Amino acid sequence: MKLNLNADLGESFGAWSMGADAALLPIVDSANIACGFHAGDPRVMRATVRTALASGTTLGAHPAFPDLQGFGRRKMQLPPDELEAMVIYQVAALAGMAQAEGGRLSHVKPHGALNNMACEDATMADAIARAVRAFDRHLILLAPATSELAAAGQRAGLPVALEAFADRAYTPGGTLVPRSQPGAVLHDPAECIAHVRRLLAAGGLVALDGTVLPTPIHSLCVHGDNAEAVDTARALRTALLADGHILAGLPEVIQE
Amino acid sequence: MKLNLNADLGESFGAWSMGADAALLPIVDSANIACGFHAGDPRVMRATVRTALASGTTLGAHPAFPDLQGFGRRKMQLPPDELEAMVIYQVAALAGMAQAEGGRLSHVKPHGALNNMACEDATMADAIARAVRAFDRHLILLAPATSELAAAGQRAGLPVALEAFADRAYTPGGTLVPRSQPGAVLHDPAECIAHVRRLLAAGGLVALDGTVLPTPIHSLCVHGDNAEAVDTARALRTALLADGHILAGLPEVIQE
Amino acid sequence: MKLNLNADLGESFGAWSMGADAALLPIVDSANIACGFHAGDPRVMRATVRTALASGTTLGAHPAFPDLQGFGRRKMQLPPDELEAMVIYQVAALAGMAQAEGGRLSHVKPHGALNNMACEDATMADAIARAVRAFDRHLILLAPATSELAAAGQRAGLPVALEAFADRAYTPGGTLVPRSQPGAVLHDPAECIAHVRRLLAAGGLVALDGTVLPTPIHSLCVHGDNAEAVDTARALRTALLADGHILAGLPEVIQE
Amino acid sequence: MKLNLNADLGESFGAWSMGADAALLPIVDSANIACGFHAGDPRVMRATVRTALASGTTLGAHPAFPDLQGFGRRKMQLPPDELEAMVIYQVAALAGMAQAEGGRLSHVKPHGALNNMACEDATMADAIARAVRAFDRHLILLAPATSELAAAGQRAGLPVALEAFADRAYTPGGTLVPRSQPGAVLHDPAECIAHVRRLLAAGGLVALDGTVLPTPIHSLCVHGDNAEAVDTARALRTALLADGHILAGLPEVIQE
Repeated sequence: MKLNLNADLGESFGAWSMGADAALLPIVDSANIACGFHAGDPRVMRATVRTALASGTTLGAHPAFPDLQGFGRRKMQLPPDELEAMVIYQVAALAGMAQAEGGRLSHVKPHGALNNMACEDATMADAIARAVRAFDRHLILLAPATSELAAAGQRAGLPVALEAFADRAYTPGGTLVPRSQPGAVLHDPAECIAHVRRLLAAGGLVALDGTVLPTPIHSLCVHGDNAEAVDTARALRTALLADGHILAGLPEVIQE
Repeated sequence: MKLNLNADLGESFGAWSMGADAALLPIVDSANIACGFHAGDPRVMRATVRTALASGTTLGAHPAFPDLQGFGRRKMQLPPDELEAMVIYQVAALAGMAQAEGGRLSHVKPHGALNNMACEDATMADAIARAVRAFDRHLILLAPATSELAAAGQRAGLPVALEAFADRAYTPGGTLVPRSQPGAVLHDPAECIAHVRRLLAAGGLVALDGTVLPTPIHSLCVHGDNAEAVDTARALRTALLADGHILAGLPEVIQE
Repeated sequence: MKLNLNADLGESFGAWSMGADAALLPIVDSANIACGFHAGDPRVMRATVRTALASGTTLGAHPAFPDLQGFGRRKMQLPPDELEAMVIYQVAALAGMAQAEGGRLSHVKPHGALNNMACEDATMADAIARAVRAFDRHLILLAPATSELAAAGQRAGLPVALEAFADRAYTPGGTLVPRSQPGAVLHDPAECIAHVRRLLAAGGLVALDGTVLPTPIHSLCVHGDNAEAVDTARALRTALLADGHILAGLPEVIQE
Repeated sequence: MKLNLNADLGESFGAWSMGADAALLPIVDSANIACGFHAGDPRVMRATVRTALASGTTLGAHPAFPDLQGFGRRKMQLPPDELEAMVIYQVAALAGMAQAEGGRLSHVKPHGALNNMACEDATMADAIARAVRAFDRHLILLAPATSELAAAGQRAGLPVALEAFADRAYTPGGTLVPRSQPGAVLHDPAECIAHVRRLLAAGGLVALDGTVLPTPIHSLCVHGDNAEAVDTARALRTALLADGHILAGLPEVIQE
């Protein structure tokens, strides 16, 4: 079975560094690259595109609310036309960086509060999907499985890749267990691997209480915030390959 | 003779309006549209692209220093790689807006202090030209005639359109007479028309002291800051048509 | 009876102008001056402080969400400690401008979405009140009558001035009738004057359906967005003076 | 002899960390705290003020060009009135944070390119000095010894503290040897200590070629960018105390 590992990259800004990009790039198949609104100035974007291309990672835009100070994690309420224009702007800017480096964008994955809100709010989700389609209808929308965002992508006729989190527990409703609750975040590599195997075996999201929400899963989201997270991502990759999965870029995975 | 009128447009931002875009669009052939760094948020950019396309005006990106408060008019010193990435980012963002609206970009014209500095500084000019070429080598660089920026565009193998200002007097060196000096700015429509006719007749820039700097002139830059400026632009258009010139988009003009 | 007219001022930014400040300053008693987060760069702030002092208007800080593009009108969700620091920062910056010009701040009135949210959300309101008190416990909090923000100011032990809108209709719950509904905004000067007289006669807010919510009213908020709004403000001032009211700065009004 | 160690602190921003503030605070006597324009959002400013007060460090404002992406290190050209307003804004904001935490500001030290430019440009230096004086004429201007900035502070009648760099070599003109030249930066703690002892013994700046520029030295600037820099600062403190110097806050040092 073809699978994909994706991670957020290029989240440094100016003089400030963030994330273990160099360590993470050889591990993941697809990079969601910050577009300057929550992180990632133009120089960082270009450098990230360049190193991602060099490591054969497929490139995604990671658009966000205009909120550097809040790292795009603070909820904002914007009218749909403003959301739409804001997403086109960011996706186009990153697509341009890819083009300047001889590459091309494969997908779009919204960041932080924009993603979280669009997973539950169909109006916002539709605005994002319209933006991606208006810019380039061949771009893949990478969205959490069972979310409103995924549904909006399908409504818009976009190719949609469904992701699950390797290190987060699910509620019976298919949303992430809030970080404030025990067991919400899986820290141990073995635990993450077991969690992912459970999802793949069940053919869907598996909640903490055992509820199964059947859904295709095309991609697994991993993190690179610290050395531990990178170790987990690496262990997951090794385990999936050992299980006989093929790890590939998003386009190949969703064309299966 | 084919000629072109260009103007800066889309310089509103959020709740703040600027410029008589609606009045100016039917008058000019090419619009230099702000890209969000000195003016023009994504919604303004999209709306400007849409109205420009509706009026048949060709679209240009108008990248600037990241300086909303200073409207891109304050000089900044950036290393060439940062300049290059910053220009790719802005041009790509506007190209994406054009693409989302079913149009395409014809040219790039740097704004304000970025333009002024690049007209005299070959290193900066080369960084800008490299950025445009890296993103799309078919984009026209719209640069002041006789400037370092124009030379850089030619060095980079870009199509270059040379512009003169309809309402500014020139020094014998081919630079603009500083606004602080008498006669620097031509306010009267008749004066502007006479100035432009003098340039076209001489086949080059004509300085205040009569010195002629031979150069092709493909485009004339006009302004829309106020009702008077729009009147001047309209009068110039009428005069040029009366003189038998053909006014057209940049691509047609420089292919002549 | 002592009363006060207040208005938002200093909402230009960089090259962009907004508001009829020069016309409005002689009409109002208290100016709520933008602090750089939704409008008002440092130069605009200083100039506004200077002209307000010259016209004898008392000075208030008008802090907002960090959102130039949205003019502080887009809702944002920030943790209370971040809100608190953000308000201290802005109030202090404006207090410093006042101090540099030989004046002093009399009050604080939150702007736009920050104000609206704090009128209904006690946690946000408390964060704002704590910020004002931490910076200077003698500053007056200017808050809509019957709002959570006013209650928070009282809980924090701040002097609180209660305002009503001269040009907006109220619901029976004491909130503004949404602009989308008929009769929400009063455009006619005579209508505004009648509305204000009704409130003052009833000793409280008077809703569209006649419900009276008893509350002191210390200040009336007027607008200066356009010439019509300025005319309304001027007419209201004349009417209130004719009715025998004394119009004064906030400190005098709430000490009554 | 009374001396002072100063360092730049509070240069994190939002989700991005920078500097070893916790390690550096017990070592230095005076903290130059970022004011939000090159680094340091309101929450970071408040937290830095709080920890600096807790460790008995005197508080300084560290105003900069409005340039988060460039960390205030990119030269900008602003008119003097804009510089002045910008410095008042930042100094006032930090003074407000100090006030909210029960402390008070002792000094102002411009950051990065603003500082560098003002050391050579009397017009800029005068604008900065005017800003500090307008806000509070008791604030100390902390300026490089022999610089235009120091001279401007004296012209403005401000208390001025003169600093030398513990880890940078000087030219015979009293400026820092550019980082591109060999010997410009002293990395070794022993080297820095020897350099500082040489300055103190000579009663002035000592250039690489031995030239002495006589000047009082009130403060030594140290860095906390990494563990090595913190070690150097700690070693310098120990050495100065061993030499019999008294290390104290700026106010005490310049009152000597």
